[in-house]
Amino acid sequence: MTDTLAEPPSERARVRRAASRGSYDTETVHAILDAGRMGHVGLVADGRPVVIPMLYGRDGDHLYLHGSVASRLMRGLAGGLDTCLTVTLLDAYVLARSAFHHSLNYRSVVVFGVAEPVTGDEAVHGVRCITEHLVPGRWDEVRAPSDVEMRQTSVLRMPIAEASAKVRGHGVVDEPEDIDLPIWAGVLPLRLAVGDPVADEALAPGLEVPPSVLRLDSAHV
Amino acid sequence: MTDTLAEPPSERARVRRAASRGSYDTETVHAILDAGRMGHVGLVADGRPVVIPMLYGRDGDHLYLHGSVASRLMRGLAGGLDTCLTVTLLDAYVLARSAFHHSLNYRSVVVFGVAEPVTGDEAVHGVRCITEHLVPGRWDEVRAPSDVEMRQTSVLRMPIAEASAKVRGHGVVDEPEDIDLPIWAGVLPLRLAVGDPVADEALAPGLEVPPSVLRLDSAHV
Repeated sequence: MTDTLAEPPSERARVRRAASRGSYDTETVHAILDAGRMGHVGLVADGRPVVIPMLYGRDGDHLYLHGSVASRLMRGLAGGLDTCLTVTLLDAYVLARSAFHHSLNYRSVVVFGVAEPVTGDEAVHGVRCITEHLVPGRWDEVRAPSDVEMRQTSVLRMPIAEASAKVRGHGVVDEPEDIDLPIWAGVLPLRLAVGDPVADEALAPGLEVPPSVLRLDSAHV
Repeated sequence: MTDTLAEPPSERARVRRAASRGSYDTETVHAILDAGRMGHVGLVADGRPVVIPMLYGRDGDHLYLHGSVASRLMRGLAGGLDTCLTVTLLDAYVLARSAFHHSLNYRSVVVFGVAEPVTGDEAVHGVRCITEHLVPGRWDEVRAPSDVEMRQTSVLRMPIAEASAKVRGHGVVDEPEDIDLPIWAGVLPLRLAVGDPVADEALAPGLEVPPSVLRLDSAHV
């Protein structure tokens, strides 16, 4: 990570542990959100924490979330509950000579805030952002949502105002007296990889794997 | 997922949305926890939710968590705060003919509970479980933690009593009237993949990549 520490946007967004790994600049936060796939959304229910995996999409300074209108979670969030969305990318195992100095390279973002429901064209835009976040170009290949489908879909918008990023991206740090131990140490990179697409059995004849999916096979995921 | 629906261990652990994807049997919950890499831990701070990525390890019916003794989060959890640990594995994009029916194949587990601090031999055991969860066999290759290092490490144990699993693992479900559209549909498998290990620059000469790391290159991650 480059040395882009600025002030946190709020006290609760301040990175406390390993503060040198923290960052609050918009570019870093947005880049990690764009690279992440799934978020984990926290809220308080009956005074106790609940954490649920959710998809998201970003447009500028906002995130979009979506779910069923029948979902308790979505109703709670739409009703103005405080939430926290955390996205984590696991980049590498850092394997030290000592158990104690084992670590991870990762990129994570924590966004605090309150989501608000959006409707009409903005709801469709929100669903589009979420779809395009996962599979860029897919939206224009498929049948768009009908009005009936959108009425079954709750779409929320959440500002990326109170956010912080935390990144570790360097090699092994061992105690000086451990360096010469006969123990292998190093970094093992990890990444999300794409397998071969499996066509639906009922696929109409002659349809090729589309550009959106072919592109995912290389850089995007 | 096999058809192993049992009763949820508590009302808050009941899977509500898409309840047919829910499961409460121990075998399913443990298998997902063992396959996952990182958890997202939620707690309530000043009445608001906070979600932080954390490593974990499992031993039987308990999870172990660890962190710095200086961490506010660890102190909060050790002090008896309710927590929720959620682990999610993203297995595939499910690409339908309609935007609305796009989905994911995934495996997730939500564990509710209260963690308690452990010390002495059990704390070392907990750290060992966390290390071995990520890189099986690594513990016996490296220098074990010293007393000084363990005094800097807070280790918590959390029961896997109130837990639920949610799994989607099937293909595209489209509207019958969309099946013949000239739109490609199918499943794109995803997995966490391992790159080539990068040895530490200060590595003592002649050290080979150890068995724990070689094994990760194939099945484990």
